[in-house]
Amino acid sequence: MTSPDIAALDKKDGVVILPIGAIEQHGAHLPVLTDTLIAGGVVEAALARLTDEVAAWVLPPMSYGKSNEHLNFAGTISLSAATLTAVLHDIAQSIQRAGFRRLAFVNGHGGNTPLLQMVARDIRVATGLMVFVIQPGSYDNLPFELPPSEMKYGLHAGETETSLILHLAPDTVQMDKAVREIPDFPETDTPLFFFGSVSAAWLADDWSESGVYGDATRGTAEKGAQLLAAYAANLVKVLTAVSTFEVPHPHNNTSSTDT
Amino acid sequence: MTSPDIAALDKKDGVVILPIGAIEQHGAHLPVLTDTLIAGGVVEAALARLTDEVAAWVLPPMSYGKSNEHLNFAGTISLSAATLTAVLHDIAQSIQRAGFRRLAFVNGHGGNTPLLQMVARDIRVATGLMVFVIQPGSYDNLPFELPPSEMKYGLHAGETETSLILHLAPDTVQMDKAVREIPDFPETDTPLFFFGSVSAAWLADDWSESGVYGDATRGTAEKGAQLLAAYAANLVKVLTAVSTFEVPHPHNNTSSTDT
Amino acid sequence: MTSPDIAALDKKDGVVILPIGAIEQHGAHLPVLTDTLIAGGVVEAALARLTDEVAAWVLPPMSYGKSNEHLNFAGTISLSAATLTAVLHDIAQSIQRAGFRRLAFVNGHGGNTPLLQMVARDIRVATGLMVFVIQPGSYDNLPFELPPSEMKYGLHAGETETSLILHLAPDTVQMDKAVREIPDFPETDTPLFFFGSVSAAWLADDWSESGVYGDATRGTAEKGAQLLAAYAANLVKVLTAVSTFEVPHPHNNTSSTDT
Amino acid sequence: MTSPDIAALDKKDGVVILPIGAIEQHGAHLPVLTDTLIAGGVVEAALARLTDEVAAWVLPPMSYGKSNEHLNFAGTISLSAATLTAVLHDIAQSIQRAGFRRLAFVNGHGGNTPLLQMVARDIRVATGLMVFVIQPGSYDNLPFELPPSEMKYGLHAGETETSLILHLAPDTVQMDKAVREIPDFPETDTPLFFFGSVSAAWLADDWSESGVYGDATRGTAEKGAQLLAAYAANLVKVLTAVSTFEVPHPHNNTSSTDT
Amino acid sequence: MTSPDIAALDKKDGVVILPIGAIEQHGAHLPVLTDTLIAGGVVEAALARLTDEVAAWVLPPMSYGKSNEHLNFAGTISLSAATLTAVLHDIAQSIQRAGFRRLAFVNGHGGNTPLLQMVARDIRVATGLMVFVIQPGSYDNLPFELPPSEMKYGLHAGETETSLILHLAPDTVQMDKAVREIPDFPETDTPLFFFGSVSAAWLADDWSESGVYGDATRGTAEKGAQLLAAYAANLVKVLTAVSTFEVPHPHNNTSSTDT
Amino acid sequence: MTSPDIAALDKKDGVVILPIGAIEQHGAHLPVLTDTLIAGGVVEAALARLTDEVAAWVLPPMSYGKSNEHLNFAGTISLSAATLTAVLHDIAQSIQRAGFRRLAFVNGHGGNTPLLQMVARDIRVATGLMVFVIQPGSYDNLPFELPPSEMKYGLHAGETETSLILHLAPDTVQMDKAVREIPDFPETDTPLFFFGSVSAAWLADDWSESGVYGDATRGTAEKGAQLLAAYAANLVKVLTAVSTFEVPHPHNNTSSTDT
Repeated sequence: MTSPDIAALDKKDGVVILPIGAIEQHGAHLPVLTDTLIAGGVVEAALARLTDEVAAWVLPPMSYGKSNEHLNFAGTISLSAATLTAVLHDIAQSIQRAGFRRLAFVNGHGGNTPLLQMVARDIRVATGLMVFVIQPGSYDNLPFELPPSEMKYGLHAGETETSLILHLAPDTVQMDKAVREIPDFPETDTPLFFFGSVSAAWLADDWSESGVYGDATRGTAEKGAQLLAAYAANLVKVLTAVSTFEVPHPHNNTSSTDT
Repeated sequence: MTSPDIAALDKKDGVVILPIGAIEQHGAHLPVLTDTLIAGGVVEAALARLTDEVAAWVLPPMSYGKSNEHLNFAGTISLSAATLTAVLHDIAQSIQRAGFRRLAFVNGHGGNTPLLQMVARDIRVATGLMVFVIQPGSYDNLPFELPPSEMKYGLHAGETETSLILHLAPDTVQMDKAVREIPDFPETDTPLFFFGSVSAAWLADDWSESGVYGDATRGTAEKGAQLLAAYAANLVKVLTAVSTFEVPHPHNNTSSTDT
Repeated sequence: MTSPDIAALDKKDGVVILPIGAIEQHGAHLPVLTDTLIAGGVVEAALARLTDEVAAWVLPPMSYGKSNEHLNFAGTISLSAATLTAVLHDIAQSIQRAGFRRLAFVNGHGGNTPLLQMVARDIRVATGLMVFVIQPGSYDNLPFELPPSEMKYGLHAGETETSLILHLAPDTVQMDKAVREIPDFPETDTPLFFFGSVSAAWLADDWSESGVYGDATRGTAEKGAQLLAAYAANLVKVLTAVSTFEVPHPHNNTSSTDT
Repeated sequence: MTSPDIAALDKKDGVVILPIGAIEQHGAHLPVLTDTLIAGGVVEAALARLTDEVAAWVLPPMSYGKSNEHLNFAGTISLSAATLTAVLHDIAQSIQRAGFRRLAFVNGHGGNTPLLQMVARDIRVATGLMVFVIQPGSYDNLPFELPPSEMKYGLHAGETETSLILHLAPDTVQMDKAVREIPDFPETDTPLFFFGSVSAAWLADDWSESGVYGDATRGTAEKGAQLLAAYAANLVKVLTAVSTFEVPHPHNNTSSTDT
Repeated sequence: MTSPDIAALDKKDGVVILPIGAIEQHGAHLPVLTDTLIAGGVVEAALARLTDEVAAWVLPPMSYGKSNEHLNFAGTISLSAATLTAVLHDIAQSIQRAGFRRLAFVNGHGGNTPLLQMVARDIRVATGLMVFVIQPGSYDNLPFELPPSEMKYGLHAGETETSLILHLAPDTVQMDKAVREIPDFPETDTPLFFFGSVSAAWLADDWSESGVYGDATRGTAEKGAQLLAAYAANLVKVLTAVSTFEVPHPHNNTSSTDT
Repeated sequence: MTSPDIAALDKKDGVVILPIGAIEQHGAHLPVLTDTLIAGGVVEAALARLTDEVAAWVLPPMSYGKSNEHLNFAGTISLSAATLTAVLHDIAQSIQRAGFRRLAFVNGHGGNTPLLQMVARDIRVATGLMVFVIQPGSYDNLPFELPPSEMKYGLHAGETETSLILHLAPDTVQMDKAVREIPDFPETDTPLFFFGSVSAAWLADDWSESGVYGDATRGTAEKGAQLLAAYAANLVKVLTAVSTFEVPHPHNNTSSTDT
């Protein structure tokens, strides 16, 4: 789109989408671009299924994320929290200046999630934009069943991510190097876990030699196609809801100093 | 404790605890100090139940949190994300310099959670400390049943928080002003919600006139006592596990430039 | 107080008080919380003596200060200058948004003083708040006489601080470990001193093995009670004056970019 | 590439390439992605022509640049100087940690150039990486002649950029909206100009209504193909030289605090 | 001095001096450069009287200070606290890298003082340099008597500063515009004052219409010469003491992360 | 000038000039102040030749620049990019508040140039000031011929700088230590060079043992006088043009958040 095209858009409804990925180790079998490929792939698949009534505009992906849990593995490129926060604020400010009203982060990397949730609200306060954080892949509504160990520990480069990349970019996968590695995190009756409300601030090399958390050997391109379809369908629903979402009592609380 | 007392501690096991609260509106019936009171109350109750074998040292509470979702209500005092992040890094650096090995944030305010999860890992990378984020109150293992609307929307100043403060600081509660306010967030088959992996970056005044999310009128001191006991029991379990937690493959990845 | 309580206050007169302490070594006999205990104790004693005509509202204490002169002793927790500055700006901004007009820092730690004086003016410029820096303990108007060496070098954990903590929190004091240590700072006819307008940027371990500057053995609970009464009486006078203080020619010079 | 692939690379020779673009207005006929398309297109064309003896690894493009000279036009998304600086430092730090020795910025947007030159040296000092700034398109060695007004004022969205996009992404061009706009900058015998060593800090809307500087109507896909070939040939030469470039007297001057 | 000259210096003894001034209003009769002129003039006069045995090296003056108390008057140029702090850290880091061991700030502007005292310690911690803050003009040891109102309120552009500039740069003074303005600050029995340990964060226009605090009409060049001689004599004593000053128990506490 | 003098100026036309230099090694024969001396000398010479019709006001010089390419030589004092950027923004903000409309940086150090060009635009956006970057010495219009090696590699402390200092401050030059050192930068048919659009981020010690780039032995005071006259004449032309320069379509795009 050109600058006048953008100026002419009806922006009352609709949502601007920023895909966010990461460049980080994904074991010996998946490319370091895995998360960026997945975020982009899901967004593309969802957009292809959106009806014309839903206005959604996609920004170029932010390929670089916050990946310092993987920094002890070669090939990881990580932005600091402050840097990624600044990038998102700056992009949001430009989006708001252009007259858009909604911004959605579609995120392909779990390590970005807390930062995105924090920044989303700060952008809401700073700019008045309605902001949404969307993690398209989750273990709800999976199109096939995962083993219990995968449900709990298949966090990274395991069955689902391997399947998705086998579908999206098969040439980049070296399945002969795929492994199964399940961390022996202490199993007690405490709720302590890798993440969530009672969590250890883990690094990838704390609990895995290979960098894999889960069973990569179970990945297949067919599962990947099913996952992509399921994720895209979820994202279509969310974007449809988001694109006309309105806050009932909006204040004029824009303030660049409150963030 | 004095400085030589601290120098003399055996720090191989054990955990340093930083209670973190917030100063923010909690409707017309609860004090703005609510979250700080709860974090402090739960920590105190848990410590009283810890066995002598568990080493745990409590820092003075950080009473000020990140509360910009409430800034349109009087009495809210909010640190910016950058400021609270800096506070936590500075405290952690002093803790690490003193020779401690584990740091746990016990958090009384949901609005702090994403920031704490993000910072915990960054502190892990920057200092080598093992860091934990603990949200002592959750809706798992509640000692009594909540109505479905409270389970879903009782986010703030509702039944549980009102009960806890009625128990911990009854003089500060004005129950005659307690209200029930359930937000009419769009109920669709999409997973869009206030928070979580598909979330809107809500402000408190977007969906509530009173500042309450939930049914404050159901709060009782007796429920508060039950909740405190349950939260404390949970926290005891977590602290016991945390105090001897070890990472299997620790790298020497301390680097002040990776945060 | 609740949020509506705060909204309803008459804020033309009155002052918001932020007690500021420090967590730092105070020799082998005093707790690392000493400065926070003193700031809080003096504020509490003063408030109890304030007449009803003086409006004063106390914030939760900021227990963490700038203590890097003590960082080579265990148990010191220090915020950087940038961090503490940010905390104070953020709190002040929330205070100003709520409609208050005056903010007073009541400081228990000498190492915070230059920063507080600098930030006070910057907050004045940034928010329009009238800001005051109050060091309640000084060697003016002492209720009893100090030896000359204590008047000059009793800077830290000496007679006055030991006395105050013996009064305020006697269980935390280990008087058997109290020492007298007077630094042998070069005595010349130059005005060079630890602080003031011709000063060396000293660290606590430059001139003291024990961390004490002064004679802790002279401390008594009775002296502490006298000091507390004297400090509180001073603070009552200051707060009374401050609470209705007005600048004769206030400009509209609020600007977040001038700080 | 996977993480082990990257770990196994021989990194003594070779260069890591980061294409940098911008999202900014390019008149009514070119897409806001123009600079990112050109940077990516030239890099891709050059890589296709590199001999196997030259080791060059391409990072995902940084699509967002510093474009505040265009911020008064819709569709411009600009990072601040501090933000883009931080992004480049973070990426470089990850590159250096992985063991690479050379980093080249291939830049598609003139507004990024001063920042890149400044940051390149700071990264050199901070990390020890040899860093290069490469502006692949310049008016030296053009494959065809430009009119004098285009040589001087064809700065943005004029004949060359229009031609390149007509070749690289013809579907995105609306040639019916292409215009010729030559700024009437004061022509004196002074060396004052838009940029260079005696320069005005111009904004795009200072001197152009359309956002175009130059004659877009002269653009053709054929010229674009010629330009791309010429730029790619230049870049091949530069990358070949860069990939084995060595500094004769390298100091161990890595210091994160000197930047 | 050339670079090899500096490398060859014996730096065990000796002190590097940074004169710091300000550009700010000084009433209608004194130039905005007043504080920079005084700092430079006193340093020059002191150096001329130093014996050869005292090694002292003067840096170019930092003419820009922190002057936001005067920002409502034309001609004031003020650096923010963060900016001036960064300048001093950067200069100190270069001084330390060159092998010097002592750094003295000779300050001509009272508004800089708290910041300098704060930064001096932070530089001490960050670099290991011994740092000194020297305010050469004080009301101790004045060579002539000042009226009581001048002793208390002659803070800015009054008798002493006017006299000094009449001596140092008489052409810049417009004595026909000199005024006497004494602020009617509330005189109570409280210790509240413009600065010090119980202070209001005043702006110059709060209490003065003219920008003058004191009686400028009493200034004479002769008094200025006497003041300069007295200040210079004081500074000679201080620099002599400082140039061989040693800390008795220096730790290796250099850490760029503690500031 | 006094504050009221500045307030009374007609500021519609006219330009505020900030000379910017550097403190950095200039070989064994020139003082580390060389760049500051040149910037100041050229500005002074130009002002002496300006006609009364041109309004130009000179600020005190900023003697400290960005010189990290020389940090491995003693005597270099370098501000970081962030620090120098902040200084220039703060000064510009004060200039804009005083009502001036144009600001010109007259720069004596090539290492500052990219930063100045970047900051100039950011100040333009942030304050609305028209900003100019002026490098008074260039190799255009030289009053005498330079050898080809000097034209290409006479970058630092060579014939021109040595000549200028021999003219401006002959007592500071040690011509017996002047050397000729031409870097053996790889001569290929690629456009790779020390700076410019295809450049290596060089450090001074990469390619020179002495710190000199060029032939210092060719410097003479007479050449220096000719150079100064030529540079001053150029600067007069530029300042005359700049002082009445107007942007044809100024927007009201002042925004402190866009920089």
